[in-house]
Amino acid sequence: MSPIQTARIMDGTSLAKRIVDEAAAKAAEISRRTGTRPCLATVLVGEDPASATYVRMKRARCAKAGIKSRHIGLPATTTTAELIDTLAGLSSDSEVHGILLQHPCGPHIDERAAFEAIAPEKDVDGVTMHSFAAMSFALPGFVSCTPGGIMRLLEAYDVELAGKHAVVVGRSAILGKPAGMLLLAEDATVTYCHSRTTDLSAVVREADVVVAAVGQPRLIRGEDIKPGAVVIDAGYNPGNVGDVDYDTALTRAGLITPVPGGVGPMTIAVLLTQTVQAAANQLGMQHQ
Amino acid sequence: MSPIQTARIMDGTSLAKRIVDEAAAKAAEISRRTGTRPCLATVLVGEDPASATYVRMKRARCAKAGIKSRHIGLPATTTTAELIDTLAGLSSDSEVHGILLQHPCGPHIDERAAFEAIAPEKDVDGVTMHSFAAMSFALPGFVSCTPGGIMRLLEAYDVELAGKHAVVVGRSAILGKPAGMLLLAEDATVTYCHSRTTDLSAVVREADVVVAAVGQPRLIRGEDIKPGAVVIDAGYNPGNVGDVDYDTALTRAGLITPVPGGVGPMTIAVLLTQTVQAAANQLGMQHQ
Repeated sequence: MSPIQTARIMDGTSLAKRIVDEAAAKAAEISRRTGTRPCLATVLVGEDPASATYVRMKRARCAKAGIKSRHIGLPATTTTAELIDTLAGLSSDSEVHGILLQHPCGPHIDERAAFEAIAPEKDVDGVTMHSFAAMSFALPGFVSCTPGGIMRLLEAYDVELAGKHAVVVGRSAILGKPAGMLLLAEDATVTYCHSRTTDLSAVVREADVVVAAVGQPRLIRGEDIKPGAVVIDAGYNPGNVGDVDYDTALTRAGLITPVPGGVGPMTIAVLLTQTVQAAANQLGMQHQ
Repeated sequence: MSPIQTARIMDGTSLAKRIVDEAAAKAAEISRRTGTRPCLATVLVGEDPASATYVRMKRARCAKAGIKSRHIGLPATTTTAELIDTLAGLSSDSEVHGILLQHPCGPHIDERAAFEAIAPEKDVDGVTMHSFAAMSFALPGFVSCTPGGIMRLLEAYDVELAGKHAVVVGRSAILGKPAGMLLLAEDATVTYCHSRTTDLSAVVREADVVVAAVGQPRLIRGEDIKPGAVVIDAGYNPGNVGDVDYDTALTRAGLITPVPGGVGPMTIAVLLTQTVQAAANQLGMQHQ
């Protein structure tokens, strides 16, 4: 007899659709009231096919939501200084409300220096140091899109975070670290694990909420999930495999995100929402 | 029979003295080579006696180490805008290399806005959003002085952090949060606890390194210290009482900081070191 599924599936696709619909309605209102459509600038260095696909997908979603996009494709030979010039130009261009630098940019680019050329008020992808600190200190600002999407999912499924033990596996600057800071701001007790963590299983077994954000296929096993825990899989590995072993986790978790259809669609939804919010801010519209 | 002391005492006073001596030597070299003495500007709003004492103490230490200081005392009625003007002026004053805003500034001041008026290259107290993100991402920049002092103590006592479980109790912007980020950068598995943590004792019992940074007298009890753990007490409560119950912790810990004489002196030592480093950077001296 196979073990019984205990987990309710968190439907990121439906929630993302609802959020995008709201963003589209707000974009339409902005266009109507100001005569200007929100505009996202997308910047891509080089010809990496996966990156090109991501950018195309994001632009298509923008178009569908009534958000203009302007694409700047730069040759693979672009220097950091040239990329900074481009981003600084977009930062001071009043027709652009949000800026997305598709990354990774390639090993010859100082990505941090490039990110920092994005004005915080246009940092709708939440990649600047300012945005990270704002997330960490619960100050106004844009969040990293994937952690932001995770928080929207937890909220939509009424997951109580205060006093709960949240374990974040992974510590990247745009995913693990900000996810932990956002969970901490919601009063969770937060543990950061990573490749050097001695006994990952032991830590995960104590978690009320697990956020897997490390990019290792099926690293988190069902047997380590505390019965009833909330499992958020932000991993995306080749073959649509997450960082969580989904089939075994299903039999222990209380709530779980599938891959695909969990965190993935939320990321773009947050990007669009923040682009619209940036436009509203810059066009002087009142918050609703 | 009373229980046996297991802990070695971490002597912050001696280590701080050594660090200040190094800073003084470097300050002297800067003065000799450039004709300019490193200069720290201290800014105090209002007449709070404790704050005034802290500032006086910091300036006295500067003087002893050959660092100039310039004090700006502002009336308690100073507005946030006026304070920002003062700090922005110091940020663009080439005769000032480091800026310390003594805080708390009082409830009518937007302290975050004030901190952000300090140029990151003069933020020798490590309070800006930029400095926090730099600490979090292991980028060049100045650290918050108390967390920076804690890291220097751990280093001086050869505490291996990689793979160890570090528990930070407290999540303030200038102490708990940056301390956790610095420990994470050294490859510790890091847990943030705080007032909403459900079972603090249980979490502390798992810690190889405990950083108490919450400002509650004797919150951490010896019985919760894992035998042999490293205990860093960054609390300072009335009556020279730390956040750790020192007498009981002594019988369980492997290493422990006393209060006073542990973390406290390290904080000023880091402030002086960073002021000298800021001067070296701004005066165009090569790193040694």
